[in-house]
Amino acid sequence: MKQPHGGNIVAFAKEIGCEVREVIDLSSNINFVKPNIELDFNSLNISPYPNYNKLEKAISKLYNIDITELELFNGATTAIYTLFIELRLKECVLYAPCYGEYERSAKVNGYKIHYINRFENLYEKVPKDALVIFVNPSTPDGNFYEIEKLMRHWIEQECTILVDESFLDFTPYSSATKYLKEYDKLYILKSMTKFYASAGIRIGALLSCAKNIQSIKAKEPLWKISQFDSNYLQSALEDRTFKDRSKKSNRENKEFLITIFHKFKYTEKIYPSSANFILIELKDIDANRLQKALNKYKILIRNCATFYPLNSSYARIAVKSRGDLDILKEALLSL
Amino acid sequence: MKQPHGGNIVAFAKEIGCEVREVIDLSSNINFVKPNIELDFNSLNISPYPNYNKLEKAISKLYNIDITELELFNGATTAIYTLFIELRLKECVLYAPCYGEYERSAKVNGYKIHYINRFENLYEKVPKDALVIFVNPSTPDGNFYEIEKLMRHWIEQECTILVDESFLDFTPYSSATKYLKEYDKLYILKSMTKFYASAGIRIGALLSCAKNIQSIKAKEPLWKISQFDSNYLQSALEDRTFKDRSKKSNRENKEFLITIFHKFKYTEKIYPSSANFILIELKDIDANRLQKALNKYKILIRNCATFYPLNSSYARIAVKSRGDLDILKEALLSL
Repeated sequence: MKQPHGGNIVAFAKEIGCEVREVIDLSSNINFVKPNIELDFNSLNISPYPNYNKLEKAISKLYNIDITELELFNGATTAIYTLFIELRLKECVLYAPCYGEYERSAKVNGYKIHYINRFENLYEKVPKDALVIFVNPSTPDGNFYEIEKLMRHWIEQECTILVDESFLDFTPYSSATKYLKEYDKLYILKSMTKFYASAGIRIGALLSCAKNIQSIKAKEPLWKISQFDSNYLQSALEDRTFKDRSKKSNRENKEFLITIFHKFKYTEKIYPSSANFILIELKDIDANRLQKALNKYKILIRNCATFYPLNSSYARIAVKSRGDLDILKEALLSL
Repeated sequence: MKQPHGGNIVAFAKEIGCEVREVIDLSSNINFVKPNIELDFNSLNISPYPNYNKLEKAISKLYNIDITELELFNGATTAIYTLFIELRLKECVLYAPCYGEYERSAKVNGYKIHYINRFENLYEKVPKDALVIFVNPSTPDGNFYEIEKLMRHWIEQECTILVDESFLDFTPYSSATKYLKEYDKLYILKSMTKFYASAGIRIGALLSCAKNIQSIKAKEPLWKISQFDSNYLQSALEDRTFKDRSKKSNRENKEFLITIFHKFKYTEKIYPSSANFILIELKDIDANRLQKALNKYKILIRNCATFYPLNSSYARIAVKSRGDLDILKEALLSL
């Protein structure tokens, strides 16, 4: 599959012979709760060059940082690629398993990759001056780490640190932004597409000290984010009830999802998750066979074989609506 | 002004104390004719990850190239920055005057810049193995060059060539794509925002041989263009009458614009243009003073002082609706 990140529902629909809109996509971690958008997109004037002042102000406020500590990108993945180029370091540390684009970006930009299996050896020594990548909560398991001790561990080695908080909005935990004033080699990444239910819009945010942001900005094009996307997100941020609604529904449905897998006879282990997805270790069946069995229910799940050091005994399942999860339940019980 | 490219109508409106929508923006080269969009943006599903297959097919067809010869970016300017990084050459040749982001991108990526004044010395020798940047039709004047002889001139020096055809769609001339099969160090840039009347959407296209495109694609994120933008452009490309309507209206209004400046007492010279803007050399007044005089008509024009080797005796004026140009005429006659 061309897009191993999940989300290639077009190819999946074609493969199983159904319409794209019929697919129950439990493979991609997009919030199933949607913000109320008070905006008529048809009447937006998209002729002029875009201006991001309002959006930048809204995002700075959301994350409680100064506007000079923020740079927006057309998606968090673009921010990752840009940062690898910007830093020009030699080595990076990936706390595995993690989002596959980190490995890809490290490789194409000539970084030597040092993997640390965070399930086994979280405090393994890191090379001096390396770029450390830590996704928190992590994927594909959704575990949230209190990073105070890790921060000391990395700072001791004078590492440049990227904390990817793309799923933090789903949790009750606080951000690593509190370290921004303390350590100037810290970057924090926010994807705006997961929590705000919109992988089709491309906005991600990189947070760092003003000096680092200025250095990045100097090499960036003036315009990069769509006027549509910018307006969508501004409108989404104005929905004051969305955060609480989202968190509550995701928490409730995640509990239900967990009970489904507790009863599933092929479950070996359910990993603890603070995000909107769960990682399942399977027994006596692998993710390929499980996926095949789910095809007739038009359910797409995420085989974790591409997440080093996991294998096809692992599957990631996203939290979705009660209706979708009911169908999953029926499907799993029939196996 | 933060955005010297023109188009900072927000700052202009604030400066002269009017609403943004009241500004008559003759500073940015966005097509004033708009495509018919048969699409309800409010009902687009932006939750899933975007898929660009349809858009890539439509753009390949538009420019009569293979889909493997195309890479899309969130705007032509992003494509420029990416190409400078991708090529890692030491020197570049800018045929000046030209779009300011070329100089900026060359500088931040460590290229030595060799300027050639195309008004004075078009066939000046170029350094061997350099990256040659040629905008055709050019900006800020809109002149179209038959580049056969220039191509030979550059190929002789084994240069890597970027022909920026962001305004070619306004002209009756043929593209440099005909050289793609012949020379594998050729790249062609297309901005989709100018002709398709939408600086607010961010889509640009880079065309080259399949091998070069593959090399770029390997370093690019999977998703970079907004689902809104992608759908807007697909819909715009389906408006079969748009090309002809656009070209005709722009041609007619450009003729009218030229007659206005022929009668303007401060006109020294009007440059020939195949694009949707014209370059004026002024006499006995400079662009700053002219701009000041136009403020009360809420008209914004482009002072060309930032286009090396031009100075503030030059102004660029975009072709707009007859109504807007009537107001310009009235304003100029009152001076």
